[in-house]
Amino acid sequence: MGSSQPTHLTGDSAAINEFIDKFDVFLFDCDGVLWSGDHLFEGVPETLELLRSRGKRVVFVTNNSTKSREDYQKKLDKMGIASSVEDIFGSAYSSAIYISRIMKLPAPRNKVFVLGEAGIEAELRTENVPCIGGTDPALRRDMTPEDFAGLADGSMLDPDVGVVLAGLDLHINYLKLSVAFQYLQKGAKFLATNTDSTLPNSHAFFPGAGSISIPLVNMTGQQPLALGKPSQAMMDAIEGKFQLDRARTCMVGDRLNTDIQFGVEGKLGGTLAVLTGVSKKADWEAADAPAVPAYYVDKLSDLRAAQQ
Amino acid sequence: MGSSQPTHLTGDSAAINEFIDKFDVFLFDCDGVLWSGDHLFEGVPETLELLRSRGKRVVFVTNNSTKSREDYQKKLDKMGIASSVEDIFGSAYSSAIYISRIMKLPAPRNKVFVLGEAGIEAELRTENVPCIGGTDPALRRDMTPEDFAGLADGSMLDPDVGVVLAGLDLHINYLKLSVAFQYLQKGAKFLATNTDSTLPNSHAFFPGAGSISIPLVNMTGQQPLALGKPSQAMMDAIEGKFQLDRARTCMVGDRLNTDIQFGVEGKLGGTLAVLTGVSKKADWEAADAPAVPAYYVDKLSDLRAAQQ
Repeated sequence: MGSSQPTHLTGDSAAINEFIDKFDVFLFDCDGVLWSGDHLFEGVPETLELLRSRGKRVVFVTNNSTKSREDYQKKLDKMGIASSVEDIFGSAYSSAIYISRIMKLPAPRNKVFVLGEAGIEAELRTENVPCIGGTDPALRRDMTPEDFAGLADGSMLDPDVGVVLAGLDLHINYLKLSVAFQYLQKGAKFLATNTDSTLPNSHAFFPGAGSISIPLVNMTGQQPLALGKPSQAMMDAIEGKFQLDRARTCMVGDRLNTDIQFGVEGKLGGTLAVLTGVSKKADWEAADAPAVPAYYVDKLSDLRAAQQ
Repeated sequence: MGSSQPTHLTGDSAAINEFIDKFDVFLFDCDGVLWSGDHLFEGVPETLELLRSRGKRVVFVTNNSTKSREDYQKKLDKMGIASSVEDIFGSAYSSAIYISRIMKLPAPRNKVFVLGEAGIEAELRTENVPCIGGTDPALRRDMTPEDFAGLADGSMLDPDVGVVLAGLDLHINYLKLSVAFQYLQKGAKFLATNTDSTLPNSHAFFPGAGSISIPLVNMTGQQPLALGKPSQAMMDAIEGKFQLDRARTCMVGDRLNTDIQFGVEGKLGGTLAVLTGVSKKADWEAADAPAVPAYYVDKLSDLRAAQQ
């Protein structure tokens, strides 16, 4: 262990105060930090209130693309965490603003073919980006010989599609993958809400958004531009929206290879790891650690030991 | 171009005769060599008959896993090509005999979870290998919250599954990928009928078997053992079945990175490329050619110029 190892804040009120004073904005990963599955960790709402009472801006940053910010606000509410839609930054929203504000594709070739759920469609709508695919029931069926022919000759394709956006699609099938592949072959830009290979659920792992887009990577030899953590395209979008000072911003998360890496590569003033999720102390002590946090606490609510 | 470039046989009767005399067995790739889609190339049945009339054994080697050998024999018959089931070696059959004769898993933990179509199930049955998944209609549905819970706690899993075999599954969905992933996490061996990223159809490309298994590769970090071309596991199985002398065997195909590589790595006596499919002359002249054939003809029926 070298001098780059993180400062352990748990139980040290003075150090916690000094830590909090360093920042104006805290970016929070949610699952593994605030809750696990449907279980809210003890003391989390109070910890967030403590930060807010000291004038800090709290932002929830999630790679979950199945929910819009509005859906996510309802989830936070249900978990007992106060927030507004404006406090939430998800990978579906990140993708929508990247397409509308950065890519600025000229109409009519600005249509998006979506591999994903309603959250992506909702966020594209809020940015007035036209989209097809997604939850369209017409694509939730078996591939037919007519589909092979109609995709091959292009008669089934919409000439206005300029982007393929892949997120977590719980209704992925051969037809949707085939359609997305044809658009990519015709030159559509390849974006992904995020590329997490797995999705935690019920204390186990399931296919994540990155395992929905990987067949397209395999077929085209192209990597998508990812708009979720740890992609810096998401950090740029967050900075643009919240006009934050990176030096006075801290990323809080449980995963070294998404959350902490996201903050370190984004050159934020700090990163705080919590031990209630995926990564453990041994992970950042390892020689091949993807990123090392600046601080860590055993659990988020340990910050409540700050002197009031 | 060095001295390793192939001999062009088209139009050279003496060279063709010499070529044919070198071999006892010809292994044929089908699509791109014998036909393209539903279009049989001119003179193909006569060329195969010419080889047979000179005492050669003709074997059809296909990565198509959706068809059993019996299905494939019917397809050859429909195309006007005479064959028996014993002349056909497909990746589904190759997988079945690998599982039954090489792996020889002790019962009861010898059950196979299949991602694929009826051809795989049929070949596993002929080798008396028990299997689940595959075309089971119970898995052709949306993922439910109960599925997440039942897969996470293992109550939905069959403890006797020792192998996950992935082929081309035209009915791939989130539930099947999740089930396969759970079996792999519990230690099942990971096999693939073949790992072609794309599938030619209607003069275009669609997701191939390798794009069905790639989400599992992405999630587990494990590569499957592939039992189709260019995997030498398939060559070993062919050698075992036909008791062939590799030095007197020639692989005939249109793709450098599957067919020709398969023959070269298998140390066969020869490889013959045809220009009626995917690879072109420029491909083996390139510095990064995956494999270079020993011979080539413009089209298979050019071999009919052999002196009778």
